[in-house]
Amino acid sequence: MDASSLQLIILPAGIIAILFAIYLARDVLSRDTGTPEMEAVAGTIYEGAVAFIRRQYTTIAILAVVAAVLIGILITLIETPSVADVPKLAGAPIGIMTAIAFMVGAACSMASGIIGMFISVKANVRTASAARRSLVEAVQVAMRGGAVSGFLVVALSLLGVWGIFTVYSTFVGNVTVAQAPFLIVGFGFGASFVALFAQLGGGIYTKAADVGSDLVGKVEKGIPEDDPRNAGVVADLVGDNVGDCAGRGADLFESTAAENIGAMILGVGVYAIAVTAGWPNPQAWIFFPLVVRAFGLLATIVAIFFVRGKEDENPMNMLNRGYWVTTLLSVVGLAITTNIMMQTNGGTGNGGFPTWLYFFAAGIVGLATSVAFVYITQYYTAGSYRPVREIAEASKTGPATNIIAGTAVGFETTAVTAITISIALFVSHWLGDQAHLLSADGRNVGGIFGTAVATMGMLMTTAYILAMDTFGPITDNAGGIAEFSRIEAGAREITDRLDAVGNTTKALTKGYAIASASLAAFLLFSAYIDKINVIKGRQIEAGVPGVELLNSVNLANVNVFIAAMIAATLVYFFSSLAIRAVGTTAQTIIVEVRRQFREMPGIMDYTQRPDYARVVDITTKAALKQMIAPGMVAVATPILIGVLLGAEAVAGMLMVGTISGVLLATVLNNGGGAWDNAKKYIESGHLKDDDGNVLGKGSDAHAAAVVGDTVGDPFKDTAGPSLHVLVKLLATISLVMAPLFIR
Amino acid sequence: MDASSLQLIILPAGIIAILFAIYLARDVLSRDTGTPEMEAVAGTIYEGAVAFIRRQYTTIAILAVVAAVLIGILITLIETPSVADVPKLAGAPIGIMTAIAFMVGAACSMASGIIGMFISVKANVRTASAARRSLVEAVQVAMRGGAVSGFLVVALSLLGVWGIFTVYSTFVGNVTVAQAPFLIVGFGFGASFVALFAQLGGGIYTKAADVGSDLVGKVEKGIPEDDPRNAGVVADLVGDNVGDCAGRGADLFESTAAENIGAMILGVGVYAIAVTAGWPNPQAWIFFPLVVRAFGLLATIVAIFFVRGKEDENPMNMLNRGYWVTTLLSVVGLAITTNIMMQTNGGTGNGGFPTWLYFFAAGIVGLATSVAFVYITQYYTAGSYRPVREIAEASKTGPATNIIAGTAVGFETTAVTAITISIALFVSHWLGDQAHLLSADGRNVGGIFGTAVATMGMLMTTAYILAMDTFGPITDNAGGIAEFSRIEAGAREITDRLDAVGNTTKALTKGYAIASASLAAFLLFSAYIDKINVIKGRQIEAGVPGVELLNSVNLANVNVFIAAMIAATLVYFFSSLAIRAVGTTAQTIIVEVRRQFREMPGIMDYTQRPDYARVVDITTKAALKQMIAPGMVAVATPILIGVLLGAEAVAGMLMVGTISGVLLATVLNNGGGAWDNAKKYIESGHLKDDDGNVLGKGSDAHAAAVVGDTVGDPFKDTAGPSLHVLVKLLATISLVMAPLFIR
Repeated sequence: MDASSLQLIILPAGIIAILFAIYLARDVLSRDTGTPEMEAVAGTIYEGAVAFIRRQYTTIAILAVVAAVLIGILITLIETPSVADVPKLAGAPIGIMTAIAFMVGAACSMASGIIGMFISVKANVRTASAARRSLVEAVQVAMRGGAVSGFLVVALSLLGVWGIFTVYSTFVGNVTVAQAPFLIVGFGFGASFVALFAQLGGGIYTKAADVGSDLVGKVEKGIPEDDPRNAGVVADLVGDNVGDCAGRGADLFESTAAENIGAMILGVGVYAIAVTAGWPNPQAWIFFPLVVRAFGLLATIVAIFFVRGKEDENPMNMLNRGYWVTTLLSVVGLAITTNIMMQTNGGTGNGGFPTWLYFFAAGIVGLATSVAFVYITQYYTAGSYRPVREIAEASKTGPATNIIAGTAVGFETTAVTAITISIALFVSHWLGDQAHLLSADGRNVGGIFGTAVATMGMLMTTAYILAMDTFGPITDNAGGIAEFSRIEAGAREITDRLDAVGNTTKALTKGYAIASASLAAFLLFSAYIDKINVIKGRQIEAGVPGVELLNSVNLANVNVFIAAMIAATLVYFFSSLAIRAVGTTAQTIIVEVRRQFREMPGIMDYTQRPDYARVVDITTKAALKQMIAPGMVAVATPILIGVLLGAEAVAGMLMVGTISGVLLATVLNNGGGAWDNAKKYIESGHLKDDDGNVLGKGSDAHAAAVVGDTVGDPFKDTAGPSLHVLVKLLATISLVMAPLFIR
Repeated sequence: MDASSLQLIILPAGIIAILFAIYLARDVLSRDTGTPEMEAVAGTIYEGAVAFIRRQYTTIAILAVVAAVLIGILITLIETPSVADVPKLAGAPIGIMTAIAFMVGAACSMASGIIGMFISVKANVRTASAARRSLVEAVQVAMRGGAVSGFLVVALSLLGVWGIFTVYSTFVGNVTVAQAPFLIVGFGFGASFVALFAQLGGGIYTKAADVGSDLVGKVEKGIPEDDPRNAGVVADLVGDNVGDCAGRGADLFESTAAENIGAMILGVGVYAIAVTAGWPNPQAWIFFPLVVRAFGLLATIVAIFFVRGKEDENPMNMLNRGYWVTTLLSVVGLAITTNIMMQTNGGTGNGGFPTWLYFFAAGIVGLATSVAFVYITQYYTAGSYRPVREIAEASKTGPATNIIAGTAVGFETTAVTAITISIALFVSHWLGDQAHLLSADGRNVGGIFGTAVATMGMLMTTAYILAMDTFGPITDNAGGIAEFSRIEAGAREITDRLDAVGNTTKALTKGYAIASASLAAFLLFSAYIDKINVIKGRQIEAGVPGVELLNSVNLANVNVFIAAMIAATLVYFFSSLAIRAVGTTAQTIIVEVRRQFREMPGIMDYTQRPDYARVVDITTKAALKQMIAPGMVAVATPILIGVLLGAEAVAGMLMVGTISGVLLATVLNNGGGAWDNAKKYIESGHLKDDDGNVLGKGSDAHAAAVVGDTVGDPFKDTAGPSLHVLVKLLATISLVMAPLFIR
């Protein structure tokens, strides 16, 4: 089989994945929905989720259309023939094409978010119902529900990138395959744009509902979590879906799309080498990322069938089994793809191995990084290890020491995160370097392409990781529905176990998303430099005086230093706005839930039904209002830096913004996760005082741990995940707006 | 007057400042020491402080000697003739000279710390006693006591740098004035080394004592703060001195020394231009930083006499009056120095102004930055503004929302910090650029020299700022002594007012220290590049193949990116170790104080006297043990990065480490300060519930605010200030070890 035949796999793999998602959705929807009480509460959650999604995506769609128009106009004005990626399309054509790519990216992201969410809020009650019969069945329902999201996100991103690439290169633009990747960066920007607001809006909503309803219900009224008398409880259950499911889906949609485009732009460099050297199928170096991801999708389809086990098995093992199947099949897919697509007419690198082997190894580095992050996150956030136990112990001396210990743990987790990413970057870059791909001007472009392949290797398992992630809110909701409708204790025990596993998988996904964001940013950074130099190269050809290629990003340049400092500050400032938004929105909920308790005295003895929908509605409005400020700051800052300080400064901003964003997200996600699990550790009776008595629920230590958990909520579910998106957004904005920054 | 006569001011100014410090010390020591009870407790604090200082500085001295020997050996081995700054001194001479400079820097830093501390623990009881007579007198005693530290730190740093420079250039090395600055970088490294351990050890001690004694005394036993029955209370009072006084003194000693050396190295570049152009007194460009600081010292001496006012005046106004006198006289000094020393034979810059005027303006930018930081810190940490009120309001819904609000405020403060620093860098760089100083290879070195002048302008007020800082622990102690020995209510009211002012001045100093650390790092970064290029230039002359000058620090280079990421991580990891060290040490104190309460039942009814000294001793040992790990991480990381990833990567580490360190320190210092003052805001009865009732001491909101205050303690007094030192340490280590990183 040769490379051009292998390329044919992209479209069918995407379609098969979508058909498989439809099959899974039908399978989930065909399951029984339990008792009338369960159906009632599930219906309420469904309504709330649909109401939120409708309002949120309407807002986002309006913002996206406005942004698309602005981008179209701006690109039309700035991409004059002398600075356009593709001179013959300069002006209005490229402006319109970028705006359309933006809209398609935004639309695909929204579609995958909406449909995934829809299935997720249908799967929750079916999981709860399945838990009444069998643990394994419940795991399967939740995982299949989650897989709908996973497949849709990855398939739509694959088909979207491929489709717009094909249309722009073949039908509309009639440009070379080497020019086309630059035309589709708008797709990545559109995806980032939607992801930013989806993650911010969803993250603010979910944590405000959580904090707000807990403060009135648990703290003021002393009723349990998820108690039906709490008017905020449905908003809380809706929140799990809109934050973890729709938000993370949009986050990873963006990762896959943006990294794909970045890798394709880097592929253009190797394409040029391949053409000069007369290698077969030079375009394979550009299509490679799409083919690898197609194989990743197929591997995940097979893996879903391996999610099974015995009734008495730890559900995490069942999920892990599927994850390992995905990983191993991905290795096979990677071997096939690199071997077939990276033909260099018998060329070898240092050490005498054939070229493809170096990149196969780089891809393995990416897959290994993915595995490493899964286990690192587990160490730092699971109750059985030192960090969480340390926080639980510190809770004995009150909330202050709990917070101090959690902060220390959060800060500490950056070390292993950074070292792992550094090793992955260094090794994949070194491997690529060894392959020795020399460009016309004598630069070895193999190194950066090695990191691109590693990134694509890492992304092969995205669909599966995302399925595990969405498993989280589905089981969380299933637990809530079980509690709410007071079903059998045996079933509730199963949903509790699944909920605990879901907490772990949600944490893992964040670790995975961070690692992928940092690799993506390094990739997009290189793509940005390539794009700047394409434009500058054209200016030099045209004889524009004083233009020099951007061969290095000089931190000693005062503009670059300032941009870097502003980028690192943006990360904190943005997080500050996101965290504060949760507080503001929670206040709205607190006021409303208190009002209902006061004005409807029958609620406490179950004779009156709280107005759940009103809380959902109020929370929705407040959360959407609050997402605007941080969103605007995130979009405006890179453009301002570029306009004021220039193209090189933007590159400095990208790098340092990525480093700072990734590390702060690590602190917030892992700190939050560890606080959460320290509370759970105490609740399961593992903490003992000096005399060996258990300090469990109701103890002072537990109260202190609840404070830590509450503090961690906006950290790990609002600010942290929004930072992943911010990091990639900086990169995609810069890519699209690059011509604006050249003077 | 010409430049070479003006240089003669350095030695007398330094000596005058030391004589003035002696005069102030004698003045303070001559004051009365109050009642026998006051003398007793003051004596105990004095003993504890001396015990701590003796043990701490013994430990640091041992570490410094070991480090000096290692550095001497290492430099001897690596500074071969081909890479030495001064080839004729290559090998053992330069190794020994660097080791000696290191020891002199370390010794000066230790001397100023020890003497300043000594006066500070003598001034506390005299301030308390003066408060029994007059507010103004109490302010003056405390401020004069603080000024002893301020003058000693700045004068010893000035004389130390000048002395070692003069000895090395004239007597020992017989080298040119352009080579000498490179020989004295060891002085800066020695100062950083001592500062790191002084700040870490003092910071861990002070907060562990604070948290530990409060948890047992206030929380478990329900007795007030500073109550004599608490065995930890003396350790707490000792802690205020060793953290705020000795720690911050060492921090700013290092700032002034390191920035001075950095500015002199940058002056070498202008010296070369001056020699070529035949300007009068080329060496003035190298001596300029020393002369400017001499004027700063003289300005501060005058200003001390302006610290006076009326009995009913806000004490902050009296201190501010002196600060403004210092600033205005510094402007005059700056005008004289730039006008006389920066003669360019009538040369003008862009716009036609004489050269010196651009640098005078850059110096003003530095002074203005200092003023800006004083007011910014006030806004973010003083009770009368939005941020603190926001945290106090959030305390109504419990400790979790208090922590969330404080975190949001801490994150938010980075924005104005970064923007101010950016503006200062940009404007001073731009001004210098306009002066148009072209080096032999056509580079405009004016810009970077402009930032150097701005930094020196900012440092002119250091002695005064440090006096205000040490005012903090003296008045804090005076309040403690007043409480402890139960003196008249009127005097206690005065010490309380002074204590509140002291809290503000301590916060201001941190803001000032952060701003100076970031400017210093940019300066030292440029000095590092200069030093690397001196060495590389020599290699190129010698015909070593493959050597290229380091003309840019390329963030797109994977090694630079990795070094940058590790640097940003180091900042978090180091803070994590420092914060955790406080927790571990506090546990030791808690155990001991509890033991004393248990085994000495007479303590609670005042019939038994707690063993204060034992707590001091235990805390001292534990704190010193805990400072080793973070200290070693801080020293080892830059060396490891340099050896593994090379000289360019180290430059990336410096820049990104600075940005990350400055921002995280801002978050920790300002967040901690805001939490502290939110508690004070509630205690002074400013917080009201919806019905207008005051929520004061004893309310749930107050309890929540106490949690925030406790969380903020290790942030603002251990980790944050240690980060200032870390940032500069990275730079001085890199400067000294530079030859090791070149391959």
